Amino acid sequence: MTKQLCLGGFMRPICLHTAWWRHPEAPADANFNWPVIKSLAQKLERACFDAIFTADHLALMPMPPEALKRSATVTSFDPLMMLSAIAACTDRIGLIATGSTSYEDPYLLARRFASLDHLSNGRAGWNIVTTVNPEAALNFGLETALRHAQRYERADEFFEVVTKLWDGWSDNALKMDKESGVFSDIERIRPINHKGKYFSVKGPLNIARPVQGWPVVALAGASEGARQMAAKSADLVFGNARSIETGRSFYQDMKSRAVAFGRNPDHIKILPANQVYVGHTRAEAIAKKRSMDDLVHVESNIPNLSIRLGVDCSKFDPDKLLPELPVTEQGQGNQREWVALARREKLTVRELAKRAAESGTGEMVGTPSEIADQMEEWLMTGACDGFIIVFHTVPDGYDDFVTMVVPELQRRGLMRTEYTGNTLRENIGLPRPNSPLDN
Amino acid sequence: MTKQLCLGGFMRPICLHTAWWRHPEAPADANFNWPVIKSLAQKLERACFDAIFTADHLALMPMPPEALKRSATVTSFDPLMMLSAIAACTDRIGLIATGSTSYEDPYLLARRFASLDHLSNGRAGWNIVTTVNPEAALNFGLETALRHAQRYERADEFFEVVTKLWDGWSDNALKMDKESGVFSDIERIRPINHKGKYFSVKGPLNIARPVQGWPVVALAGASEGARQMAAKSADLVFGNARSIETGRSFYQDMKSRAVAFGRNPDHIKILPANQVYVGHTRAEAIAKKRSMDDLVHVESNIPNLSIRLGVDCSKFDPDKLLPELPVTEQGQGNQREWVALARREKLTVRELAKRAAESGTGEMVGTPSEIADQMEEWLMTGACDGFIIVFHTVPDGYDDFVTMVVPELQRRGLMRTEYTGNTLRENIGLPRPNSPLDN
Ligand SMILES: Cc1cc2nc3c(=O)[nH]c(=O)nc-3n(C[C@H](O)[C@H](O)[C@H](O)COP(=O)(O)O)c2cc1C
Ligand SMILES: Cc1cc2nc3c(=O)[nH]c(=O)nc-3n(C[C@H](O)[C@H](O)[C@H](O)COP(=O)(O)O)c2cc1C
Repeated sequence: MTKQLCLGGFMRPICLHTAWWRHPEAPADANFNWPVIKSLAQKLERACFDAIFTADHLALMPMPPEALKRSATVTSFDPLMMLSAIAACTDRIGLIATGSTSYEDPYLLARRFASLDHLSNGRAGWNIVTTVNPEAALNFGLETALRHAQRYERADEFFEVVTKLWDGWSDNALKMDKESGVFSDIERIRPINHKGKYFSVKGPLNIARPVQGWPVVALAGASEGARQMAAKSADLVFGNARSIETGRSFYQDMKSRAVAFGRNPDHIKILPANQVYVGHTRAEAIAKKRSMDDLVHVESNIPNLSIRLGVDCSKFDPDKLLPELPVTEQGQGNQREWVALARREKLTVRELAKRAAESGTGEMVGTPSEIADQMEEWLMTGACDGFIIVFHTVPDGYDDFVTMVVPELQRRGLMRTEYTGNTLRENIGLPRPNSPLDN
Repeated sequence: MTKQLCLGGFMRPICLHTAWWRHPEAPADANFNWPVIKSLAQKLERACFDAIFTADHLALMPMPPEALKRSATVTSFDPLMMLSAIAACTDRIGLIATGSTSYEDPYLLARRFASLDHLSNGRAGWNIVTTVNPEAALNFGLETALRHAQRYERADEFFEVVTKLWDGWSDNALKMDKESGVFSDIERIRPINHKGKYFSVKGPLNIARPVQGWPVVALAGASEGARQMAAKSADLVFGNARSIETGRSFYQDMKSRAVAFGRNPDHIKILPANQVYVGHTRAEAIAKKRSMDDLVHVESNIPNLSIRLGVDCSKFDPDKLLPELPVTEQGQGNQREWVALARREKLTVRELAKRAAESGTGEMVGTPSEIADQMEEWLMTGACDGFIIVFHTVPDGYDDFVTMVVPELQRRGLMRTEYTGNTLRENIGLPRPNSPLDN
């Protein structure tokens, strides 16, 4: 079998392009319109996507009013609530929710992901984030966010607690023996008695071990701390490479770090985010992109760049090249990628800011076969194992990809034509973790 | 129109009878078997129930191993995750989840209930609890639970934060004007800047004001603190009266407290929990109850009584009358109801314990018309506005009620034959709260 792409669909927010909702056909409320979300999720399932991905930022985006009022991100569903509803209307597609180790509680989070995994019959995934949005802290009783290093220290312990809770149940804990009246073998349901620096949690959970053992674990950090955590523990790593070269170096770095932890490099999948514009001709694809980009209001540009760089960019001269930046406490890996882009293309602050509002991620533009060529090159030359596809608007971005790119990828054997596994782990080709209670 | 019963179906746990899962027809894993739960929820919707109710205890129940191993409560879904999935498969029935003010976070909780309300198009409800289960504290970094008075102090502030967050959005905050590119009127999306004793939360939420303004607010406390909070703020009050007399006195107490707060007494509905056994003949109904009760193992009795009374009952002489009890820090109202039952029927500890395992709630046993007679008497003589129906097993308890009792209640005009409102508030006849931003 040819190597195949692992594909996730970015569904929360429903699109990342600042102006997606201004497209003439777009239902502007799609971020919290359940019938629309349901039909898009079912569309991605019919196209055999591996998973749906939902991000989360736990506050309004940190933007000045002039930009914020133009952003459709002000209202969206809680990611786990949204995926639980989607679980009920789909059968095979994976369901990956972002969950914050800085602001959520590990017992509740472990239980919610276990619930999603049982509800969906083994399709849940957890995207671990430390939360880049500095405004979030203020919604959770803190004056400022934890510093970057502390955030990942806390994330490590949070992850340890959550996985111990899942492992606190043996796969064989339930007897359900009507004759004797014994429901469970409580020797196989163990307290974890965790006492650490950040958390103290007795356990066990009051829900059985997830169908997948552990839901699929994703991580999207790019700083040193995040890369080490991902190399050690993540099944999926979301990236933000904006060129095949930066993609390749991130890919190689992550695979070798995983090997250094004694892992099989095939068991950690690298998936950069990728906004796709496709047309029957190249000109049509470019025109689509241009018409979307023309809808972005200039007020949105600098604030979007500030978010990407984790630095207030309104103080820079917009017509000069991007100056040297201080190290950010927010998203270090993100900053690195955007600085690289600015240097590579010698962009002024104004030009770079425009790009930031047009797409937060890498981008591909072209005919179905041009898109497939690029994806194939990324896959075959060690720049990725697949992509998180970002759609430029609703429903067009979704329809374009599903009707034009997917058939071309399937024709080339780069994408499945039907699901082969039942669980998300099976579909992606990931091993199922055992509980120590079952060893 | 005759006065009608407001009916909720108790679905998490799926039944309360300790031995429900041993019934020959019962799928023993029904507490976390999604296809079973989905079909039961749809059944209650076809029967025009007002709402589904889900409880939550945030830890394994505090029982010794010999009892715990017999309990099907060890594994269930997170209530909000379960209701989100049910929302996607139903159209009209209300969805009430228990959410703890002692262990959840107000920003996340407000956002999740707002999500459920939007996903379900206005069918969400929040059952506020301070969490009776003392074991829960240990899963959330505490050595012991907050003391009773402090729990309700914290609950008050928690509720204030959550409702301020919902009210931080005007109903008219979203412009979604494609022409000008203005998505929201950010003057109508306001930070709450709450700083209190327990919480400090800036806001606003990153989800629009709930469809119902506020999801329906339920409360199940019975102590002084809980009654005051319910009288001031709750739309629904769940009770645990075990006789029409205690029901009536609770009903009258709650209605007059509500009036003292300047509220319309019709806008606070009193719903005792009620486990129903119904048969074509009275003998058949009694036989059903007996065959369920015979499945309860003796080891389960005392631990169940300990939970109801909030006191370790294993130290009492089982063959003596219940001694005077210390005031519990756990569920004061619950204790009062069980002590009243013991005194009224002069039960020994052993006899009372057997009742505790057989049903945690009031009970009705009889033919459809006998059940309807009793319900009608409770409704018409000011002992309740309806019931939270507890089913004795799956699927029989559900089927019996829906096929035998519901048609009888409908025939008498005591229950609707189709939904008249769209939202849960409309169906129950509750006003929709306005945001101060819209006054
Ligand atoms: C595809 C993708 C999705 C992301 N989703 C989120 C998210 O939902 N919430 C969040 O706080 N950060 C999100 N991030 C940011 C990362 O978690 C991370 O903070 C960022 O890449 C910077 O890395 P660092 O934190 O290691 O410096 C995402 C990043 C990528 C590439
Ligand atoms: C129908 C009903 C459902 C309840 N559900 C819960 C629940 O899910 N979680 C919980 O901790 N307590 C639950 N309780 C207990 C109450 O919240 C409350 O703690 C108890 O009635 C004792 O009252 P008090 O806390 O005011 O003393 C429930 C009570 C009733 C009557």
